[in-house]
Amino acid sequence: MGVGVELDCLEGIRVVDFTQFEAGPSCTESLAWLGAEVVKIENPGLGDPGRRLQKGKPGHDGAQTITDSDPWYFHQYNANKKSVTLNLKSPRGLEIVRELLKKADVMVENMAPGTIERLGLSYDEVEKLNPGIIYCQIKGFGTGSPYEKSLAFDMIAQAAGGTISVTGDADRPPVKPGPSLGDTGTGMLMAISLLGALFKRSKTGQGCRLQVAMQDAMIHYMRVPLSKTQLTGQAVPRDGTSRSTPGGLVPNALYPCKPGGPNDYVYVFCSRANPEHWQRLLKVMGREDLSGNARYDTQAARAERPAEVDAIVADWTRKHTKEEAMTLIGAASVPAGAVFDTLELMNDASLAERGIMQTIDHPTTGKVKMPAWPVRFDGEPARVKPSPLLGQHVDDVLGSWLGLDAKALGALRKEGIV
Amino acid sequence: MGVGVELDCLEGIRVVDFTQFEAGPSCTESLAWLGAEVVKIENPGLGDPGRRLQKGKPGHDGAQTITDSDPWYFHQYNANKKSVTLNLKSPRGLEIVRELLKKADVMVENMAPGTIERLGLSYDEVEKLNPGIIYCQIKGFGTGSPYEKSLAFDMIAQAAGGTISVTGDADRPPVKPGPSLGDTGTGMLMAISLLGALFKRSKTGQGCRLQVAMQDAMIHYMRVPLSKTQLTGQAVPRDGTSRSTPGGLVPNALYPCKPGGPNDYVYVFCSRANPEHWQRLLKVMGREDLSGNARYDTQAARAERPAEVDAIVADWTRKHTKEEAMTLIGAASVPAGAVFDTLELMNDASLAERGIMQTIDHPTTGKVKMPAWPVRFDGEPARVKPSPLLGQHVDDVLGSWLGLDAKALGALRKEGIV
Repeated sequence: MGVGVELDCLEGIRVVDFTQFEAGPSCTESLAWLGAEVVKIENPGLGDPGRRLQKGKPGHDGAQTITDSDPWYFHQYNANKKSVTLNLKSPRGLEIVRELLKKADVMVENMAPGTIERLGLSYDEVEKLNPGIIYCQIKGFGTGSPYEKSLAFDMIAQAAGGTISVTGDADRPPVKPGPSLGDTGTGMLMAISLLGALFKRSKTGQGCRLQVAMQDAMIHYMRVPLSKTQLTGQAVPRDGTSRSTPGGLVPNALYPCKPGGPNDYVYVFCSRANPEHWQRLLKVMGREDLSGNARYDTQAARAERPAEVDAIVADWTRKHTKEEAMTLIGAASVPAGAVFDTLELMNDASLAERGIMQTIDHPTTGKVKMPAWPVRFDGEPARVKPSPLLGQHVDDVLGSWLGLDAKALGALRKEGIV
Repeated sequence: MGVGVELDCLEGIRVVDFTQFEAGPSCTESLAWLGAEVVKIENPGLGDPGRRLQKGKPGHDGAQTITDSDPWYFHQYNANKKSVTLNLKSPRGLEIVRELLKKADVMVENMAPGTIERLGLSYDEVEKLNPGIIYCQIKGFGTGSPYEKSLAFDMIAQAAGGTISVTGDADRPPVKPGPSLGDTGTGMLMAISLLGALFKRSKTGQGCRLQVAMQDAMIHYMRVPLSKTQLTGQAVPRDGTSRSTPGGLVPNALYPCKPGGPNDYVYVFCSRANPEHWQRLLKVMGREDLSGNARYDTQAARAERPAEVDAIVADWTRKHTKEEAMTLIGAASVPAGAVFDTLELMNDASLAERGIMQTIDHPTTGKVKMPAWPVRFDGEPARVKPSPLLGQHVDDVLGSWLGLDAKALGALRKEGIV
């Protein structure tokens, strides 16, 4: 609690946020962390389906409920935002959202293809209301793509964008990368683009329409594998990284550590550009006897005998825990990383002390420790504030943006519009 | 060629770019694509080590060479930038870079810990020269972390940031996700932060210091696995996604397609929030006979028999190619994604037509097809321009920023300073 500062980079910027789940919410949350006023527009009663993802709890199977059954997932992508409920199927609800859009600087949506247009909130419509708006759309597939009308979730984007094809062991089917790059990876590219557009608008007053597809966004993260295909003309094979690859960089793999649990590994890597890494590694391992040995002294020599080199490294790593191995090798200025699991990261003292993980106090969930925006501003992290309760900011936002008074708000409530 | 438009969002913004390899260059390249003037400062003779990564070519093992042996890798992360060579070990070279910093809006560096400070270009020094500068640093580990002084490359960040722990098959060692999330994933978070800071500066004139660590940045992409740990109190196990998980969402896996090659799979997923997905999938598969069958009709029921459900889906997918399966299932509004490999993506007609992949004509490499910034601005992608030759823009930048004339530039060349 109390870690970090309230950033004001985007102070005064108003965002109307029609996003759900992760690709859109991760984008608008980064704006909220930078100080924008991000207002989630949610349907009364249910809200963002990301509120109700916990299996075995009410609502997880599409049932109607007002319970947030998975507040943890929802917190992660909606911290620091406001929530306004609005029934967009009622004429009055739609009228109010149009009034909000007139006052907004940015609008972001990641609904299924065609949905925002069916609501009467297409770019052409909104641009008429507010020519200066930055109108942002995140979809699974690009306009003009053969899959333009198809739905996508994280894993679909990761399949169609190539990240799955290059992940896994060479002798097995591919596997999905664990992180939700399809969602958050896309959200980050939209955030960069809209901030660029906002910067321009601050000088010209000119709005614009931004569109990104999750499949296309994955290709941005696939540029190393794609550059290998440019060199070889072949699809990049999977490389599970449990051993160094013949002809590749050596050593460059995950090495087993004691006590041998499922994540007791350390990644050790000697860069191509830094021949001194190998010499330093030999010293850490007490294997200076191999220094000057032509079988191992250059990347070219090691590339001829990866199994031998891996055995030399693993002989040493097996005698150490992953933390010891990372500390000792890292201190010798050789790149090394222990494979930390999610529980170790949740409990990591340094991440909490440095405000990379922060604990919020949420009115219904209680204390939740969660990742914050990881970039420091003048040495300080942004302070995480709890995600909003459904409709928590109706009075605040409709009052301050549109000047609605208590009586008008009461009427909207009575009619089920908010 | 000629696809896309030159974006001018960041027109007039000057970036002094001390970055190398990928984490830093991916950040500054996004600025260049948005129209900033990004000037890479490279040492004369060698330049960014990212220019020389191709194995078996001169320079790959740290040897001195002026050949760009791997232009493909370098192009991907340095398109649309300028290159100025400057010997920062000479007093005059350092003086010139200090003059450039006085004229700059943004500085970005991702050198090894302590290096920029040893050059006399710490934040305190640069802030004295230019109080309005946005000074950005990307390191492997955070200030105050036990690994603060350690080196990191992509895979080290992915190990220490948890992404490796959640990737792979449950019965095998973990594997590194194929995309270079440790590098580009970090660069994107810095880009968002510096654009926020730049927006604020446009109103206040106030600069700031931004810092991000690659380990910390990975945690931003790990929020779904971390939210599961919050629910269960356990480390998230790996799930290779070659089958649906008992008790999880079903179906939610990679299903085999014909003709059975290493990437002939389609990801099929029925969302928890959309019970209609299963009914639609049954129709595509010609299995309406199962509609209404209580064994399969709800996520809860399917979660009890994932192997049975997977067999039903795989019976159908095996009769189709991954493209057919993706097209047919996607057209029925059920999320589906073929596992495209890097060669298929390089040759994909839609990606090229839509400007997501663009072909540049580079003076020494010739034609190179490469990914562009995937976000469209008013329907158009940003135009990719070739990465610079080493020192290509010495005259341009030192002339236009500092007013150096031909005689002064000639003298600098003679002395080996540029």
